[in-house]
Amino acid sequence: MGLDTPALVEYICGMLDSTDDVWEVLSTARSIRRFTDEPVDDETLDRCLQAATWAPNGANAQLWRFIVLAAPDQRAAVAEAARIALRAIEPVYGMTRPAADDDSRAARNNRATYELHDRADEYTSVLFTAYKNEFASEFLQGGSIYPSMQNFCLAARAQGLGACLTSWASYGGERILRDAVGVPDEWFLAGHIVVGWPRGRHGPVRRRPLADVVFRDRWDPDRADIAYGRGARPRGGRPRV
Amino acid sequence: MGLDTPALVEYICGMLDSTDDVWEVLSTARSIRRFTDEPVDDETLDRCLQAATWAPNGANAQLWRFIVLAAPDQRAAVAEAARIALRAIEPVYGMTRPAADDDSRAARNNRATYELHDRADEYTSVLFTAYKNEFASEFLQGGSIYPSMQNFCLAARAQGLGACLTSWASYGGERILRDAVGVPDEWFLAGHIVVGWPRGRHGPVRRRPLADVVFRDRWDPDRADIAYGRGARPRGGRPRV
Repeated sequence: MGLDTPALVEYICGMLDSTDDVWEVLSTARSIRRFTDEPVDDETLDRCLQAATWAPNGANAQLWRFIVLAAPDQRAAVAEAARIALRAIEPVYGMTRPAADDDSRAARNNRATYELHDRADEYTSVLFTAYKNEFASEFLQGGSIYPSMQNFCLAARAQGLGACLTSWASYGGERILRDAVGVPDEWFLAGHIVVGWPRGRHGPVRRRPLADVVFRDRWDPDRADIAYGRGARPRGGRPRV
Repeated sequence: MGLDTPALVEYICGMLDSTDDVWEVLSTARSIRRFTDEPVDDETLDRCLQAATWAPNGANAQLWRFIVLAAPDQRAAVAEAARIALRAIEPVYGMTRPAADDDSRAARNNRATYELHDRADEYTSVLFTAYKNEFASEFLQGGSIYPSMQNFCLAARAQGLGACLTSWASYGGERILRDAVGVPDEWFLAGHIVVGWPRGRHGPVRRRPLADVVFRDRWDPDRADIAYGRGARPRGGRPRV
């Protein structure tokens, strides 16, 4: 593969991070935003795409198409969409480029997010589309495409591949990606998943405890408090944005 | 458990159907619509709910609540919502109650669908809600709740539990479920999953081949043909509705 030693070690660590255990996959499929230079081979990617097709969907009509974006023109469009998305999410996340000497958890998270956007033209990614139908609300139609994106991410995690769901196909990037790929307007762009071999490790997701989010039979207003922002928030804690 | 012999055999077969292999889980997590009378224990259900919390979601804000519906009043509301949903989907699916002596595949599928709706008040189910936000389109907001529903279904499959995604919380059933549970209008009802121990087996999902739904770099109008209806459809075949 022509990798130098550190890159080879990273590559092997990524491989070792594969697992067929469903519970490990489900609990450690966190977003990966930093990737090695190693390309994603077709066999690995096809297993992710196959898993995407296994998802439930309304009436099993499979009104979806998955477009692998790897050619230079399409990658350039992805990078432009990523730049636009970054400008949109910075204020929402309250995020700025961290100082070089800032080693806090927030800074490390943000640094990974900036790297993902800055290097978007170097990665393979997959655009998920869904045919617009007249039988369901726009919201409900998401139920026939987002499960396939989750299956894709889980199959990636199982193989040690990193993946990150993005909304680069929304907001200002939608028209750019639509035109670069030629997706007709009667298809939703549901989302866009970037893939690559992780720099760093897969690891457990961070979430609020089950007791915070599960109700029994009746809505509980006392546990329906809202917080925007990144990361799990302790009960009663301040939102992180 | 006080089960008679056939019920006991079914129950044990269901248990044997559990697996920790992620590829088996992903490829055989098909919708289950026929259930035994055996109740779903809290430990099994909690593992499904825990898996739901592990799903990716916008900014990891976890703006979701999962409501387990098991009490008589809530089950009655579910059953009413199911009756309404059945009237809505019959014409869409081109579905009628099959004759008793019809043993075709379509008849067997439809019989299971009618049984699910007819017996809706006997089952435990989970209502998935998501807070409406101003940062994303309604469609895109589905991306922060439907992956959690898929994780739930996969965790059910792993444990041998049966699950069926329904849209009973949409259409005419939305108001009924909202009122019975007390969900405020600023939360979406994303969907409703019925759970139970399967009568019959888990098995492979039926889908169009990968080559039908994956494009490389450019949209392919020749492979963007649409078909509504249940089940995988052969290339160039007639829609099944």
